[in-house]
Amino acid sequence: MKILLIGATGTIGSAVVAALEDKGHEVVRAARNGPVMVDMTDPASIEAALTSVRDLDAVVCCAASGRLTPLASTSDEDFTAGLDGKLLGQVTLVRRALHLVRDGGSITLTGGVFDEPTPGGAFGALVNAGLEAFVEAAAIEMPRGLRLNAVSPGWVAETLEAMGEDGTRGTPASEVARTYLRAIEGTTQGQILLPR
Amino acid sequence: MKILLIGATGTIGSAVVAALEDKGHEVVRAARNGPVMVDMTDPASIEAALTSVRDLDAVVCCAASGRLTPLASTSDEDFTAGLDGKLLGQVTLVRRALHLVRDGGSITLTGGVFDEPTPGGAFGALVNAGLEAFVEAAAIEMPRGLRLNAVSPGWVAETLEAMGEDGTRGTPASEVARTYLRAIEGTTQGQILLPR
Repeated sequence: MKILLIGATGTIGSAVVAALEDKGHEVVRAARNGPVMVDMTDPASIEAALTSVRDLDAVVCCAASGRLTPLASTSDEDFTAGLDGKLLGQVTLVRRALHLVRDGGSITLTGGVFDEPTPGGAFGALVNAGLEAFVEAAAIEMPRGLRLNAVSPGWVAETLEAMGEDGTRGTPASEVARTYLRAIEGTTQGQILLPR
Repeated sequence: MKILLIGATGTIGSAVVAALEDKGHEVVRAARNGPVMVDMTDPASIEAALTSVRDLDAVVCCAASGRLTPLASTSDEDFTAGLDGKLLGQVTLVRRALHLVRDGGSITLTGGVFDEPTPGGAFGALVNAGLEAFVEAAAIEMPRGLRLNAVSPGWVAETLEAMGEDGTRGTPASEVARTYLRAIEGTTQGQILLPR
């Protein structure tokens, strides 16, 4: 398969690239910098990245950061971090990609549920729940046999370790990558996939 | 109690006004037009409406329309109908009101889940799921004993009848209004309340 992967330089993205190439897939890497540039907060750059590659079988977005923002403080713009990129950017990606991916291909997004309410996590909860509800609902409108799914990676071991926390509380990036492969190579439609 | 009710002229809002006044509460009516004007897509108008009334015990938002937009067509702006008002507007309302409502008071929003995926309902599903996740998560950050809840009214009988459909499939507005009263007069926190 020929696959456009957005967020190819991140912890999850680079593990997904490795897993896909291991299986013999051709991966076109897109990121904020590099040969195929994409800024998920900019619909025009999403469209440009998609149209720069021909005959795509799949589009995968691993570019989905989040952060905590307290409810009572900060500007509206700080508070709604994640709105333009993770939520609306991934919605835009679906709406553009569904015209460009080959028949029977797939689009795989990145969600991420907070297991329980976390102080500062209210807008992140909105973004993740909104995105996952979108995937489940939009799947029934996908044309030409296209499939739409999201991976909810949870905490990644390498990310926790980089934060100085206990990596064993998370899932190794290589295992998270296998979850993306289930979405890309499998038959699931409208699902939120978790690492097994 | 002194209560600011936004969306006071709508089907649900006017039923909630009637139910609150029946119980002896003082209701300040806000709507797109009238003495207290508010446009939920405009953060400055939300702030102006809140600061125009002193000593509020509760804020209620019943101004939350929705519509169906197909995944594959329409402009991004049409597709994301409901984003600025129903989703971000209600988030802004919470963030402003939590500084202004009296200790132990409450904020009640309007959600609305689609029971099952509906063609054209993908963005509406995002808005409702995002809002409800926000309410559940933001409740743990409310200061001074403030409570935050949302009502998920479902189909309202009078709305269905106005659309020429079978009103018995929905809940009468007077019953939906009682659900708002449970949120305003009760002790629930971080809940999504459904008509009983």
